Amino acid sequence: MPKISLKGQQMPESPIRKLVPYAEEAKKRGINVYHLNIGQPDIETPEAALKAVRENDIKVLSYARSEGSETYRKKLSKYYREHNIDVNEHDIVVTTGGSEALLFALGSITDFGDEIIIPEPFYANYNGFSVANGIKVVPIVSTIDNDFALPAIDGFEKLISEKTKAILICNPGNPTGYLYSKEELKKLRDLAVKHDLFLIADEVYREFVYEGIQHHSILSLDGLDEHGIVIDSVSKRYSMCGARIGCIVSKNKELIQTALKYAQARLSSPTYALLASEAALETPKEYFDAVIEEYDERRMILINALKKIEGLKVSKPKGAFYCIAELPVKDADHFAQWMLESFSDQNETVMVAPASGFYSTEGSGKNQIRIAYVLKKESLIRSVELLKLALEQYPD
Amino acid sequence: MPKISLKGQQMPESPIRKLVPYAEEAKKRGINVYHLNIGQPDIETPEAALKAVRENDIKVLSYARSEGSETYRKKLSKYYREHNIDVNEHDIVVTTGGSEALLFALGSITDFGDEIIIPEPFYANYNGFSVANGIKVVPIVSTIDNDFALPAIDGFEKLISEKTKAILICNPGNPTGYLYSKEELKKLRDLAVKHDLFLIADEVYREFVYEGIQHHSILSLDGLDEHGIVIDSVSKRYSMCGARIGCIVSKNKELIQTALKYAQARLSSPTYALLASEAALETPKEYFDAVIEEYDERRMILINALKKIEGLKVSKPKGAFYCIAELPVKDADHFAQWMLESFSDQNETVMVAPASGFYSTEGSGKNQIRIAYVLKKESLIRSVELLKLALEQYPD
Repeated sequence: MPKISLKGQQMPESPIRKLVPYAEEAKKRGINVYHLNIGQPDIETPEAALKAVRENDIKVLSYARSEGSETYRKKLSKYYREHNIDVNEHDIVVTTGGSEALLFALGSITDFGDEIIIPEPFYANYNGFSVANGIKVVPIVSTIDNDFALPAIDGFEKLISEKTKAILICNPGNPTGYLYSKEELKKLRDLAVKHDLFLIADEVYREFVYEGIQHHSILSLDGLDEHGIVIDSVSKRYSMCGARIGCIVSKNKELIQTALKYAQARLSSPTYALLASEAALETPKEYFDAVIEEYDERRMILINALKKIEGLKVSKPKGAFYCIAELPVKDADHFAQWMLESFSDQNETVMVAPASGFYSTEGSGKNQIRIAYVLKKESLIRSVELLKLALEQYPD
Repeated sequence: MPKISLKGQQMPESPIRKLVPYAEEAKKRGINVYHLNIGQPDIETPEAALKAVRENDIKVLSYARSEGSETYRKKLSKYYREHNIDVNEHDIVVTTGGSEALLFALGSITDFGDEIIIPEPFYANYNGFSVANGIKVVPIVSTIDNDFALPAIDGFEKLISEKTKAILICNPGNPTGYLYSKEELKKLRDLAVKHDLFLIADEVYREFVYEGIQHHSILSLDGLDEHGIVIDSVSKRYSMCGARIGCIVSKNKELIQTALKYAQARLSSPTYALLASEAALETPKEYFDAVIEEYDERRMILINALKKIEGLKVSKPKGAFYCIAELPVKDADHFAQWMLESFSDQNETVMVAPASGFYSTEGSGKNQIRIAYVLKKESLIRSVELLKLALEQYPD
């Protein structure tokens, strides 16, 4: 029998999906499962985007331009300039989701055996894209004790080797909800420039910031034209995860030219989704105001309710729609599975993502979970109630 | 300045797109350019597919299931069974185009430095996906003198090394139009089994066969359950290249499990396009009959017209919608560019794809071009007339 590659064997299973079979079993037993495990918002996609697809007059569903149409990239660059990111259409390659943007970025700047440094916990699929590219993730630990702020810079410096090609951050962070300050970003910039590394920022949650704090893109800082790469996506911004449209943004011409070659090899991003994404740029400010207000309320309800649980520690997110909670259990993987298999209250239970999958250091985050506050307030309140009851009844 | 990776530098530019700037310049000068260079059909997408998207009632454009919905995979497996391919929904991972299917397949079975053997000329983007995976394409030459039939098996055996992981064919072939016989496929099967290699068949042009000859899928042969991988796509079948939906089909459970991990890392294929692709499966036989008849007529018109050009040799395609023509010129790259830059007749010219980009062996195919017969008959006739005039006037 022909063999699966080492790389194929090393590809991680999604930590968010590992528990899916248990959730399905629970549902078969008639249990209502609250999904706090995935970042699939319940917010409606802007009508402009939906309408553009419903009213399309396509007769031949043709390839789109590999890098995205000039019109779309021009409109996108206008959006970026409104967010203090001074780019034009030549600094953008449209991709099939933020996932592909990261895949192209890593493919453009790393070779087999290279390393990238990522503060952990981090978005689990960064592992998958790294394995796919044959490179190694070097984690630097951030901690719940300061809400997962940027680790000290000398910690980064100790990890930099000849193989290090980039530092990758997610800002605001999935799974931490942490929002990097301008000062922190400047430190990262100075570090990247000093060691001639790329600084990649996954900014797909740019709009989701609370408490009136401003989000700063790495490309709004001076001095990162050659080193800065932004990963972006329409998925969360317009609650259109199923579109699969994102982009790479960089002022580094060589990087953009290289990413374009990757884009050409896969021909085009999905044409219908491009229609929706271009139309979504017309979404009025009121849509975002309402959405952010909704998430902010959910955030406060969730955090305040979680804080009341004895022995539970929670980081207060300032952005995105996730938080990490530390539970008074030894093994959150087991606890999460137990909640689906053996726990219910009035035929209801809750599904969370064990945080160990968001760490690269073996054994880290074992007692932590990630909670996505993508459900309505009543559901969040009930979910935390269920979590509390489960913790009380958990035998281990 | 931080460096682009070796891999990024090695990513090939698309040979089909290299000449695009010259075509754009020509258009700016008011020249009408006939595009024989790309496989973008002018055939209308089936109404069922278009309608499914126009009449969708999506409010939240959510992620689809990573491997494709169970319903879609069940319907797909019914389609395959109707084509003598005995698979079920568990043997399929839905992908974002045939491109991603090949990327996942290569990622699942090869490691850095491994090799795959491909009869050349071959679809140029196979190079890109190989570079992206850090593997080497080992070409085996097929020749226009026998319409690019399967090279002798002992030629393959000479190229097999410890690093060889798979043989990749495209059937019917892009760019050759060659359709492998059942006998040829059996030879490949025996070879793959003997050396425990995967046999990957890109069968995206399955329906496009002429002269009443039957297409045989590798998965319709006995004995390839562990070794066979089919790459498929809706792009050409339903003239919906812009959907970006394809799939991997294999009876090898480990392969499918591994491909699924890749699929999970990128979350989902585009949701609108999945709607269209599922609906497209309802396309009546009459649609295909009409389309195949149209292509067959184009094929004969093209081949007969090309044969009348002095000094030109053309391979007769039995499938897909491409053919390779050998021109009485030294450098078809230069000739193709010259047709766009310096030639026109009544303000018209023609764009073809130089075939050198479809060869991996340096210097091969230098006097060949690929022609896609994706235009209406009158346009094809005029295109060949322009090609003839250009050859007469070409100074080199």
